[in-house]
Amino acid sequence: MDRNSSIGVFDSGIGGLTVMKEIAALMPDESLVYLGDTARVPYGTRSADTVKRYSFECARFLIQHNIKLLVIACNTASAVSLEDIRSSLDIPVIGVIEPGARAAVRSAANRRVGVIGTEATINSGAYVKAIKAIDSSVEVDGFACPLFVPLVEEGLTEGDIPYLAAKKYLGAMSEKGIDALVLGCTHYPLLKSVIAEVLPDVTLIDSAVETARAVKESLQADSMLNSGESQRQVRYFVTDSPERFVAVGERFLGKKIIDISKVEL
Amino acid sequence: MDRNSSIGVFDSGIGGLTVMKEIAALMPDESLVYLGDTARVPYGTRSADTVKRYSFECARFLIQHNIKLLVIACNTASAVSLEDIRSSLDIPVIGVIEPGARAAVRSAANRRVGVIGTEATINSGAYVKAIKAIDSSVEVDGFACPLFVPLVEEGLTEGDIPYLAAKKYLGAMSEKGIDALVLGCTHYPLLKSVIAEVLPDVTLIDSAVETARAVKESLQADSMLNSGESQRQVRYFVTDSPERFVAVGERFLGKKIIDISKVEL
Repeated sequence: MDRNSSIGVFDSGIGGLTVMKEIAALMPDESLVYLGDTARVPYGTRSADTVKRYSFECARFLIQHNIKLLVIACNTASAVSLEDIRSSLDIPVIGVIEPGARAAVRSAANRRVGVIGTEATINSGAYVKAIKAIDSSVEVDGFACPLFVPLVEEGLTEGDIPYLAAKKYLGAMSEKGIDALVLGCTHYPLLKSVIAEVLPDVTLIDSAVETARAVKESLQADSMLNSGESQRQVRYFVTDSPERFVAVGERFLGKKIIDISKVEL
Repeated sequence: MDRNSSIGVFDSGIGGLTVMKEIAALMPDESLVYLGDTARVPYGTRSADTVKRYSFECARFLIQHNIKLLVIACNTASAVSLEDIRSSLDIPVIGVIEPGARAAVRSAANRRVGVIGTEATINSGAYVKAIKAIDSSVEVDGFACPLFVPLVEEGLTEGDIPYLAAKKYLGAMSEKGIDALVLGCTHYPLLKSVIAEVLPDVTLIDSAVETARAVKESLQADSMLNSGESQRQVRYFVTDSPERFVAVGERFLGKKIIDISKVEL
């Protein structure tokens, strides 16, 4: 393992591709290996023990690919297993919650932050905990938006239906005087323009962008950024239905998915 | 086991409650026991072998409750495991596909039937096969409506958002000249009024209603309808999250869910 090794990224399914996209945009020389545990998605409805076991299996798979840094691009897995995985590996491990929480605190001049995510993420309180750990004076309102993931997976990211759904979920938020809203689900960056229409005066925090920045900072600090001399490789692995992953995933990535294989963990 | 034993109903989750509701409405004297395999929902994305194994575990659990008839109130489980379960049990076993298919053929004067369901149900071709087996001259158009389940689980069954979603999915169907549309997913009866607005001239086939009728016919034929003399019992079992099952399920059922327990299969 050296500076030209790959960055490993895993998610319970397809959503982590928004993180993958931002990492590739920010660090175009890096080789990447992505694992989507599509056979066992969603993690959000499983018990913490089960999510930990699945997360460790994903991490172990990526470690076998000789990665230099691991990204847990899944909110549930980040909330439940980041600490355990971090302490069991000797490479840097970055989740999606901390970077979003840090950016939210930075952007919230009035100390009021909103967080949206799946029911599981909001109920876990992981963002509230992460934000309060950085600055306990910040008030945090969490709100679940269960329709957003199916809308994004259906490709319905603009037009009447997503706009009305965003209005239904976020209409009340505009009266709460929040400065910043964390898009606390890897699917939500695809709804950014619709959300901005409903909340024009609120800074939207894209966890995918913030996570990519955290990855770059970590590699930079360790002098582990790719030297740019070797041939870049991007590989995808899924545990079920590569066809569906490619069909839906290319919308997330804005790029073709070429090198993809189905694996068992 | 006798005529005053319970009817057993299982589903991968919550949707089968629409079938439960129609059975209770049609046969108010019957005792009922419902199992929702909420820890392993959805079945639609799992392999056929896995769905068969889960279905047998559900059936076995209900058999231990001394049931006189088993209803597989799940489209995926009906498509994949009805025949195997039927041949392994000595009580009648009724799925949700055959009754809907029969009613559709009866209602389709112009021999054109539409079927809507989840991606898994539509891709399985189970309704096409069942309808063609009854009358091979009927033309069948299947169409997946992936947003309908999350809309129903969110309680969004009327208003702009479900109407626009129904129009998006079914708008093109109105030009195909279908006579009857099978609501081939146990969640969809809750969207009946919105679907009827989009397709006012089409007969909507409610699989839940048709399945309840098939249950009554079977019990009648076997002289196994409840005598009406014993105290009626309605019990619910789930494999995870009874709270969520109660919160969402009461909308499906239009009634309180009282006697509920979490079990392991």
